[in-house]
Amino acid sequence: MEPIEWRDGKVRFLDQTQLPAREITTETDDPLVIVEAIRTLAIRGAPLIGIAAAYAVALAAVPPVAAGKPPGTAADRVRGAMELLAGTRPTAVNLFSALGRMKETLDRCAGPAEIAPRLLETARAIHAEDAAMCAAIGRFGAGLLPADATVITHCNAGALATGGIGTALGVITTASSLGKIRRVYVGETRPLFQGARLTAWELSGSGIDVTVMTDSSAPYLMIKERVDAVIIGADRIAANGDVANKIGSYALARAAADHGIPFYVAAPTTTIDPSLPEGGAIPIEVRAAEELTFSGTGRIVPGGASVWTPAFDVTPHEYVTAIVTENGVNRPPYSFHAEDGGRPGGGGK
Amino acid sequence: MEPIEWRDGKVRFLDQTQLPAREITTETDDPLVIVEAIRTLAIRGAPLIGIAAAYAVALAAVPPVAAGKPPGTAADRVRGAMELLAGTRPTAVNLFSALGRMKETLDRCAGPAEIAPRLLETARAIHAEDAAMCAAIGRFGAGLLPADATVITHCNAGALATGGIGTALGVITTASSLGKIRRVYVGETRPLFQGARLTAWELSGSGIDVTVMTDSSAPYLMIKERVDAVIIGADRIAANGDVANKIGSYALARAAADHGIPFYVAAPTTTIDPSLPEGGAIPIEVRAAEELTFSGTGRIVPGGASVWTPAFDVTPHEYVTAIVTENGVNRPPYSFHAEDGGRPGGGGK
Repeated sequence: MEPIEWRDGKVRFLDQTQLPAREITTETDDPLVIVEAIRTLAIRGAPLIGIAAAYAVALAAVPPVAAGKPPGTAADRVRGAMELLAGTRPTAVNLFSALGRMKETLDRCAGPAEIAPRLLETARAIHAEDAAMCAAIGRFGAGLLPADATVITHCNAGALATGGIGTALGVITTASSLGKIRRVYVGETRPLFQGARLTAWELSGSGIDVTVMTDSSAPYLMIKERVDAVIIGADRIAANGDVANKIGSYALARAAADHGIPFYVAAPTTTIDPSLPEGGAIPIEVRAAEELTFSGTGRIVPGGASVWTPAFDVTPHEYVTAIVTENGVNRPPYSFHAEDGGRPGGGGK
Repeated sequence: MEPIEWRDGKVRFLDQTQLPAREITTETDDPLVIVEAIRTLAIRGAPLIGIAAAYAVALAAVPPVAAGKPPGTAADRVRGAMELLAGTRPTAVNLFSALGRMKETLDRCAGPAEIAPRLLETARAIHAEDAAMCAAIGRFGAGLLPADATVITHCNAGALATGGIGTALGVITTASSLGKIRRVYVGETRPLFQGARLTAWELSGSGIDVTVMTDSSAPYLMIKERVDAVIIGADRIAANGDVANKIGSYALARAAADHGIPFYVAAPTTTIDPSLPEGGAIPIEVRAAEELTFSGTGRIVPGGASVWTPAFDVTPHEYVTAIVTENGVNRPPYSFHAEDGGRPGGGGK
């Protein structure tokens, strides 16, 4: 099942908040529905957010069939949608790079009639390129894993998070197709359980042996059992290789370092933000308190207590063994530039 | 509110699974109700489990008022209850040390008439001694904390877990009464949320500034903010100072070591098991898969995935800065013996 598709002038997407209990898809020609889906994490995962935003912009270019108010020009509608989309989630840079490309396409249009088809063309290209990048990341990353590997991952950097086979999970499924994967452990990924709900669903669906644990169990697993690698995705990577990813990633990186286990980050070059020299400058989204204070229908944090709800953390580059992009395996020292992104062999210039 | 009380021949206890939403107490003269309460974590926390088990044994000595079947002798009923209680939870050694004391009392009884009053006397003593040990631990531990301290704790080692003010939380509330606590961070403590539900409830009820975070956030907090200490309780401590405590404790210990933060364990000497030379011999309870696969009413782990659900982990002694018992502050090298338990200054013989 594709997490997002363009079909006959509409966007069809899977509501990821309902997995694994229900597979519910929504079809829409309203860009605002996509905006809301990104905000609520019905659509999530850094590369997929970029793709969805691009399609939402393409939708905005088409005049609404039954507009309650004057539809304005295509360019106006597109700019309005871009502004709303840019305000959904601050950390994943893929959102902003996708919007940047859509803006460039808009600016290059010779006349209004070109806008809708050209924007759709670019959105489709962003989608297709992401699929190709995932495939390449999978091949490069699989080469890093030993035979019979036990691997830990976190959150969901899979097909559900991208336009293709996924980044971290693309590495795992590619390695699995080569017979290299013994077992995958995934932290449930509090507070929204993307590891339990999405990664376990994807991997078990691919016939890969996957075990869910509390996020706090990973270091204990590392002393109880041989773990060959930790591999995660990324929401934004600074020029020096600092990595913003789901809260708990830094904990895993330090635990891996403590136990002598390589820690790999798999991400397309669209996730690299060469404009930021280091990770301290990456904006970290803080989610609503309710994601922590309620579980199911019950209140679990009493009213008198505060909560701290960063959606992401930043892992300093010194704890990242390698960053795998579609261009190859980058090793420290990392030095990503606008023009070369995740160049093979990376860094060291 | 007391988590457990002996009242007019009955045991009255708070159902901790219902906190913080509901404060429900149960009154019973049936030892089987206590057995079930321990098994379901309505009564939890290593010292409190020991106290509850002692009271359950005392209840068993009293002939049932309306027995469906012949009640047997008091000694038989007591031995039957002890066997059931010993099978409830394997990790907390306080359970077994309390049962051991009750057994000694039983063995010393001169005749059947003595059994019920003598067993109650011992159970009350175990309860009162635990309260006194908590108070002493609080005083010794508070001395370890600097002024204006920001402290991380995990799970619940508070009044709800003991017969007194708690162990780790006893240290925190004692330090707070001396004006030394700025803020407490607590991991929510997956899967059963004891940090969110119980510790946040206790500390906010005491007017202490408490912030709940995902368990995976602690290392990131350590780079974002000054953290002065991590302090936790224990379920069993081996002779060499290895500490079994709630899953996630080892993760915190390594994170504290990585960030140069002291890691303290607060526990009465009843938690020390000098018969085990090291922590590898501590039996670690594995909880039901459902504690991880369901959240609220919804399934979050798909059927095709496995789960790993250790209730505890073991922190090797080299990551424990000090162990605070009612006898004082023990520092490495730890060497606990049957006759000296948590002797002040500890170890090194």
